[in-house]
Amino acid sequence: MTESERKTWLTVQEEVRRCIRQRIWKPGELIPHEADLAREFGCARATVNRALQGLADAGLLERRRKAGTRVALTPARKAEFSIPIIREEIEGKGHRFDHRILHRHMSAPPPDVLTLLHLANGRKILHLQTLYTADGRPYVFETRWINSTAVPNALDADFDTLSPNEWLVREVPFDRGDFAFSGYAATTADAKVLGCQPADALLMMERTTQRGEDMITYVRLLFHPGYRMHTRS
Amino acid sequence: MTESERKTWLTVQEEVRRCIRQRIWKPGELIPHEADLAREFGCARATVNRALQGLADAGLLERRRKAGTRVALTPARKAEFSIPIIREEIEGKGHRFDHRILHRHMSAPPPDVLTLLHLANGRKILHLQTLYTADGRPYVFETRWINSTAVPNALDADFDTLSPNEWLVREVPFDRGDFAFSGYAATTADAKVLGCQPADALLMMERTTQRGEDMITYVRLLFHPGYRMHTRS
Repeated sequence: MTESERKTWLTVQEEVRRCIRQRIWKPGELIPHEADLAREFGCARATVNRALQGLADAGLLERRRKAGTRVALTPARKAEFSIPIIREEIEGKGHRFDHRILHRHMSAPPPDVLTLLHLANGRKILHLQTLYTADGRPYVFETRWINSTAVPNALDADFDTLSPNEWLVREVPFDRGDFAFSGYAATTADAKVLGCQPADALLMMERTTQRGEDMITYVRLLFHPGYRMHTRS
Repeated sequence: MTESERKTWLTVQEEVRRCIRQRIWKPGELIPHEADLAREFGCARATVNRALQGLADAGLLERRRKAGTRVALTPARKAEFSIPIIREEIEGKGHRFDHRILHRHMSAPPPDVLTLLHLANGRKILHLQTLYTADGRPYVFETRWINSTAVPNALDADFDTLSPNEWLVREVPFDRGDFAFSGYAATTADAKVLGCQPADALLMMERTTQRGEDMITYVRLLFHPGYRMHTRS
C-alpha cells in the first residue's frame, strides 16, 4: 500500500466514523453501497472496503454478505491488548528483569488442566513454576504445564537462560489461545513466593495456547498485589 | 468483497501462517515482496496486502514502509475481546437480568477520577452506583462517573428503565477507551452489595471512555467472586 492509498483509507474511515457519531447514519440502518461511497469519496472501491472492514472489526458496523452493511445496534466494545513478553514489560518500565525456576518436574496435571490440554488421565507432562522479578522484587508467579508430547524439545530446554515464557514464544510461535481473567486470593504458598500476605487479592490470568489442533501449554499467572494490566481500544 | 476474493485472501493468509509456523520463513527474516507472492499465489496484489495486514495486526509480521515485511522476532500475542452489554452477557448465559440503581447524585469525584476525566478540581458530575443481577443474584457492582458536561442528557436519563451501561452504549457510541484489570479486595460496603465476604478477592475492571477529545465516563466494575472473564485470540 502506498502512503497516498493509506491516507485515503484513513480519511474514508474517519468520515464514516463521523457519520456514525453524528447519527447521520443511525444505529441499525443500512449504510450506502461500497460502490456509491467510492464514487462519493473519489477513491477505489477496495479502499472503501478496507476502511469498512476495519470499522466492522472494531464493532461499529455489521457486515452481512448480500444483506449489506449496517451501523451496529449495540456496538460491541472491543479491546485488543498485547500479551507482552514478561521481560519486555518489566524492562519497558525501566526495571531489571530476572527469573528463577522454582520447580521443574514431569508430573500428572490436575483434572481441569488435563481437560484443557485434551490429555488422557494420568499422562505426565512438564510442570514448571517460575518467579519473574523486577529489580529483585516478585512481579509475577507463573505455574505452567507444557504438553511435552506436542513440544518434545521442551524437555531439554535450558529454562534458566531463556525463561519458559520467552522460550515458548520463540519456539512455538503463538497461534491461538484462550485467556481468562479473575480475582484470586493468594494461598499461603503463593504468598511466600510473591512476598505478600495470604488471602491478598491478586489478578490471575490463565492462558491456554494451541498450535493447529495441538494443545501446547496451560499457564496461570499470579501478579503481585497492586498490579494493573492496561490496554487501550 | 466477493466470496471468491474472500477465499483467496484467507488461503493466502493460511499459507503465510504455515511458512511462519514451519519456520520456512524464520523470525526476523524478510519475506518475499507482495508482487512476488501475488504471482506465486496467482491472485491480486491487493489480496496479498489484505492477508499480510491481517497477520501484521495479529503481531506475526512486522511491516515497515520501504524496509519491507519481516517475520516478527517476538510475536506480540494479541488478544481481542468484546466488552459485552452486561444484560446480553447475563441473558446469553440463560439467566434473568435485572439492575438496580443504588445511588444517583451530582458530586465531586475523587482526585484520580478528576484526572482521568480531565476535569477541574471541585467540578460536580453525575455519580451512579448500580447493581446488576443474574437470576436475582449479584453479578457485578458498577460505580460510574459520567462527565455530564460532555453528555448533558445523562442528567435526565431514565436509568431505571435502561441501565447506565446500556444507555451509554446507545447514546454515546463507543469511540476509544482505556481498560485496566486488577485484583481487588472487597470492602465491607462492597461485600454488602455483592453478598460476599469483606476482603474477598474480586476481579476489578476499570474503563475510561472518550469521544473525540471529550472524556465521557469512568467506570469501575467489581465482579462477583468466582467470575472469570473469557476471551479468545
